[in-house]
Amino acid sequence: MNEQHRQRLEAVMSFSSDTAGGLMNTDTITVRADISLDVVLRYLRFRGEIPDMTDNLIVVNREGKFLGTIQLTDLLTEDPSLTVAEIMARDVEAIPATTAARDVANLFERRDLVSAPVVDENGNLLGRITIDDVVDVIREEANHSIMSMAGLNEEDDMFAPVIRSSRRRTVWLGINLLTALLASWVIGNFEHTIQHLVALAVLMPIVASMGGIAGSQTLTLVIRGIALGQVGGANARKLLNKELAVGALNGLVWALVVGFVAFAWFSDTQLSIILGLAMLLNLVVAALAGATIPLILHKMGIDPALAGGVVLTTVTDVVGFLAFLGMATWFLV
Amino acid sequence: MNEQHRQRLEAVMSFSSDTAGGLMNTDTITVRADISLDVVLRYLRFRGEIPDMTDNLIVVNREGKFLGTIQLTDLLTEDPSLTVAEIMARDVEAIPATTAARDVANLFERRDLVSAPVVDENGNLLGRITIDDVVDVIREEANHSIMSMAGLNEEDDMFAPVIRSSRRRTVWLGINLLTALLASWVIGNFEHTIQHLVALAVLMPIVASMGGIAGSQTLTLVIRGIALGQVGGANARKLLNKELAVGALNGLVWALVVGFVAFAWFSDTQLSIILGLAMLLNLVVAALAGATIPLILHKMGIDPALAGGVVLTTVTDVVGFLAFLGMATWFLV
Repeated sequence: MNEQHRQRLEAVMSFSSDTAGGLMNTDTITVRADISLDVVLRYLRFRGEIPDMTDNLIVVNREGKFLGTIQLTDLLTEDPSLTVAEIMARDVEAIPATTAARDVANLFERRDLVSAPVVDENGNLLGRITIDDVVDVIREEANHSIMSMAGLNEEDDMFAPVIRSSRRRTVWLGINLLTALLASWVIGNFEHTIQHLVALAVLMPIVASMGGIAGSQTLTLVIRGIALGQVGGANARKLLNKELAVGALNGLVWALVVGFVAFAWFSDTQLSIILGLAMLLNLVVAALAGATIPLILHKMGIDPALAGGVVLTTVTDVVGFLAFLGMATWFLV
Repeated sequence: MNEQHRQRLEAVMSFSSDTAGGLMNTDTITVRADISLDVVLRYLRFRGEIPDMTDNLIVVNREGKFLGTIQLTDLLTEDPSLTVAEIMARDVEAIPATTAARDVANLFERRDLVSAPVVDENGNLLGRITIDDVVDVIREEANHSIMSMAGLNEEDDMFAPVIRSSRRRTVWLGINLLTALLASWVIGNFEHTIQHLVALAVLMPIVASMGGIAGSQTLTLVIRGIALGQVGGANARKLLNKELAVGALNGLVWALVVGFVAFAWFSDTQLSIILGLAMLLNLVVAALAGATIPLILHKMGIDPALAGGVVLTTVTDVVGFLAFLGMATWFLV
């Protein structure tokens, strides 16, 4: 028994913390299929203690192979002369130890589980996962997404020392500075155009900013979809088409609005039309980028929640400035 | 019994869905304190069915007042001749029906609960909350935060019709356009300065962009802290001081970096110093705004996850452009 316990503990230690194996504990109570409920009841009374979060006992054969579970509630309501085999649930899927923690969480949510058995590749029982640990996974997954989007480490404690916080965040600021410099370099190529028509400098942040906002809406939707397992290869194309249509529609609406605002402000028809066209273009590009960037990053094994925002803003800034200042140079100067 | 059931069902219906009362169900099994476990065991066997997610029975007095709970596992291990009163847990806190769903979730997480009793203001049992519903609350709360930050409705289905999606997002784009126009208006006041020195137009987005990024890091941290109940009135001041220190430190670092970059690019000492100073100022303001905006919005009863980002970007854009172009006008022109 002790040898078995030691072996199981070693098995737990060997799994990565983001897999079912890493989440499981070995506080299981196992029973054989051929004994009567009465024997089980006497065994439990003799044992004297049942681990927390135990809603079922796990049925295994002599070799430790997982066969099914019996609910504690069934022990309390079924005829004690029945055997375990007669009342056990055989359709319970045991979770392979290599299953991703995220998939374990989805399974618990979908099936409303309190605990679930974990098995190795041969179907032998290794331990069980309980809902309290799954709740932590769900909370951490969500926190990770939210913090990553701002380039924060989820371990970045609210009250971490100033130096440590600064150092962690400075990496993110550095990466963003590179993208800001790229945008500045684009603007720098149009210095003469801006000198000629300073209104361009006044209006250009609007194009970039609206593109960033629209793109981040699509980006957030797709990142959540990937995290919750709702977006895969099959429906990615459908999602992209939908987002492009939303981008085009909103692009048209806001192109008209900013066009009129610019005309009211500077009374320059050509400038207003160019601003509207740049806005339309940037909102369509933002939808395209917002939908494809997380899918590509995810395929490359990079967390889209972490890197998606920077890549997106780079695209919407560069395209926004380039489209607006480029068209202005072509048509106005 | 049926009358009682009907009354309890009505009680459930009358609570808002984001309170303990709205989360609870009335599938409770109640027992009296003065009976023996043997009687409880026979009652359960007679009853024949125990609701899902039942890990304890709820002990009430004749008037339905909540007294404590007994674990099903204790029924299986304790001496059947003991009374409920002898083994019941009396230190179980029942949840008042008006408790916020978010606080219920925090309680379940902290105490690793599977189910918990819900009571009215007089301590009478109304029902119970089970972990499966709490998991949904946690998931929804996190989704709500993530989606709100991008101005999305969490019910905005990935595959909602194009028109509906566009209309929902267009409100957010409209609000952001107003803040972008405000930033443009600030820039517009410095048209002559920019005409005089076009490098200002090239460099100004860097100041605004870095402020926005740094501010959103602080903002995200504080919004999460509020959502998870980690930030309250008591430690708000400490958090603000810490974030201001981080802002000042990172401001110094990046002021030096962008100063050198600007000097390498435009070989203009004064311009580089002004850029660095504007960066330092904007990063300190970003920390101040990122920490205080969500606290103020929360106090006003406005969801900081929804409105925080827009308000923050408005501040960092306006301060960024104003500081940089203002100092340039004063010292360079």
